[in-house]
Amino acid sequence: MKPKAAIRGLPVYEPGKPLEEVKRELGLEEVIKLASNENPFGCSPRVMESLTTEFSSLPLYPEGTAPELRRALSERLKVDPEGIILGNGSDEIIQMISRAYLEAGDEAVMADKTFPRYKTQALIEGARPVEVPLRDGVHDLSGMLREVTPRTKILWICNPNNPTGTIVDKASLTGLLEELPDHVLVVIDEAYAEYVTDPAYPDSARLLEKYPRLIVLRTFSKIHGLASLRVGYGLAHPEIVRELHRVREPFNVNRLAQRAALAALEDEAFVRECREQNRRGIEQICRRLEEWNLFYYPAHGNFILLDTGRPSDEAFQFLLRRGVIVRSGKALGYPTFIRVTVGTPEQNRRFLDALGEFVARGEADQP
Amino acid sequence: MKPKAAIRGLPVYEPGKPLEEVKRELGLEEVIKLASNENPFGCSPRVMESLTTEFSSLPLYPEGTAPELRRALSERLKVDPEGIILGNGSDEIIQMISRAYLEAGDEAVMADKTFPRYKTQALIEGARPVEVPLRDGVHDLSGMLREVTPRTKILWICNPNNPTGTIVDKASLTGLLEELPDHVLVVIDEAYAEYVTDPAYPDSARLLEKYPRLIVLRTFSKIHGLASLRVGYGLAHPEIVRELHRVREPFNVNRLAQRAALAALEDEAFVRECREQNRRGIEQICRRLEEWNLFYYPAHGNFILLDTGRPSDEAFQFLLRRGVIVRSGKALGYPTFIRVTVGTPEQNRRFLDALGEFVARGEADQP
Repeated sequence: MKPKAAIRGLPVYEPGKPLEEVKRELGLEEVIKLASNENPFGCSPRVMESLTTEFSSLPLYPEGTAPELRRALSERLKVDPEGIILGNGSDEIIQMISRAYLEAGDEAVMADKTFPRYKTQALIEGARPVEVPLRDGVHDLSGMLREVTPRTKILWICNPNNPTGTIVDKASLTGLLEELPDHVLVVIDEAYAEYVTDPAYPDSARLLEKYPRLIVLRTFSKIHGLASLRVGYGLAHPEIVRELHRVREPFNVNRLAQRAALAALEDEAFVRECREQNRRGIEQICRRLEEWNLFYYPAHGNFILLDTGRPSDEAFQFLLRRGVIVRSGKALGYPTFIRVTVGTPEQNRRFLDALGEFVARGEADQP
Repeated sequence: MKPKAAIRGLPVYEPGKPLEEVKRELGLEEVIKLASNENPFGCSPRVMESLTTEFSSLPLYPEGTAPELRRALSERLKVDPEGIILGNGSDEIIQMISRAYLEAGDEAVMADKTFPRYKTQALIEGARPVEVPLRDGVHDLSGMLREVTPRTKILWICNPNNPTGTIVDKASLTGLLEELPDHVLVVIDEAYAEYVTDPAYPDSARLLEKYPRLIVLRTFSKIHGLASLRVGYGLAHPEIVRELHRVREPFNVNRLAQRAALAALEDEAFVRECREQNRRGIEQICRRLEEWNLFYYPAHGNFILLDTGRPSDEAFQFLLRRGVIVRSGKALGYPTFIRVTVGTPEQNRRFLDALGEFVARGEADQP
């Protein structure tokens, strides 16, 4: 009755602190959560309408391969519908890729400070995660390339990177793709793609034709505001997608998620508006960080990783007591940083007020 | 870029034909689907109300371990909340168990004609499925016990068994649990438990305390009518649940599923009514099968596996053209059978009318 050796002692993912829990624990009424990079503007109002149209189908299994949603994505992104696979969040696609391609003793190359699921999934498969240090918060593609061996199966790039928010630009990415040996899959996790406004950001859907060992991951959990429903997708060569289907759960993406994603995809104005608001929020926050002389990484997603100059958990607890949940940098490998989601203007103000108090107090504490 | 050896050539799960597809293909307006053992009476009306209360939380990730739902299940079933794990359908729990406990070369014992995911998951892990023939459509527990070796990690019992609908009774189950070596996990998949009225059916939640290597699987997809939303659960010793959490996706059960399951669980009257209607439906169908001298297995779930006496696909196509989707027995290992979900009285009548025609035509065809 022993579990397999690979998972012994494996840590369980620690999500951002849920709102409900904080309210219960601190007895606070007004709590804002800027910890999980959710969309503070909600989701398109079209989603709610579309959901009620599915209520009569609640007892029916969803269509396993989400044909309607794939068709819509295929038209929007100009890719083959057979080159699209849906997941219960892009989390599940990370799992499917790892489960289909990694065997005991294989290697997966990734940044040392990045989304933790690439590593966990490799460990579960008995594969070896090879972690390459970021350089100034950015993926070191040359360093990653140097770590590729005949046992390397996957190279993960989180772009923008979570938790730093930095991006890999198009030139660096194509350079890597040109030099990488043929036996390695490259997975670019673009959960925050729709937030990026930098023209150097690669249009990865256009790279798929030229580089058939590329997989691009996207999600409806971030700018589309549907984290509750769990729907993400992968773009890849149809041959890769066929392999992933072999390890896909038959009904992995629930029916309401499929319906909601379709509605969200149609509302381009909502996405545009959220992207603009996010840019303004980043400016609103960074202006103050600069006044306080706090270092932060250039933010391309909807979150900012910033250095408080003191232990992360101190800042985290200080903000928490004032009803603002952020992510402590401690577990992210940045022991004096916090990661904050860009909120509404009002939420950003509340965060900045609390952080300003923390900064001022810190200065007062100095001898 | 090669997938792992274990999944090469692995078949992809073939679900029951979706309503939408049949309507498109045959240009039929009125189609009834009795192919996937969904609840023909829908779900509790409380579910719809509860879902709309979650609409303001659509952008928020669900709570990973579903604490509210676990608490409700714990009270209802009188089990430790730490001994409950939720899945994206019980399908995902089958995956988690396999992924946590099976290594290459391990063995998993199961019936030869049963729910196909136990076998697929073993294959994906590089483990060997050991299939023991049913006896008269029933799990042969002594035969299964004889196949247990030092490499056996899991023994699967689908109860009631899909596709036969038969049950393993309490005496046989406890007999097996007493004799089985300690290193084997026993998983009882009780997807159809709430439909069973036979007093010999084991109350497996009560066996958990005595047998700490037991896992019981249940689902909200069947009698609760929530197949669209994907929520199932496992009951086991907290130590086993802890291991499963290591391979659980952080946000595997979506927020609306958690809310809907809570509402469904409270509506005991709905469940009772569906169970009664199902018994009446079984009688309605079996009475006619007996008139036609068609063999069927004793049905304890919400479906009947019956012998049409001719190739399954002939019957399947005949019924399909009359707007009734059933499951052909061919892929289920019963090449002259069909599996039909017990529907509403009206749906059952339509099914019986079409099947009656098929039977009559068959007799006319005889030389």
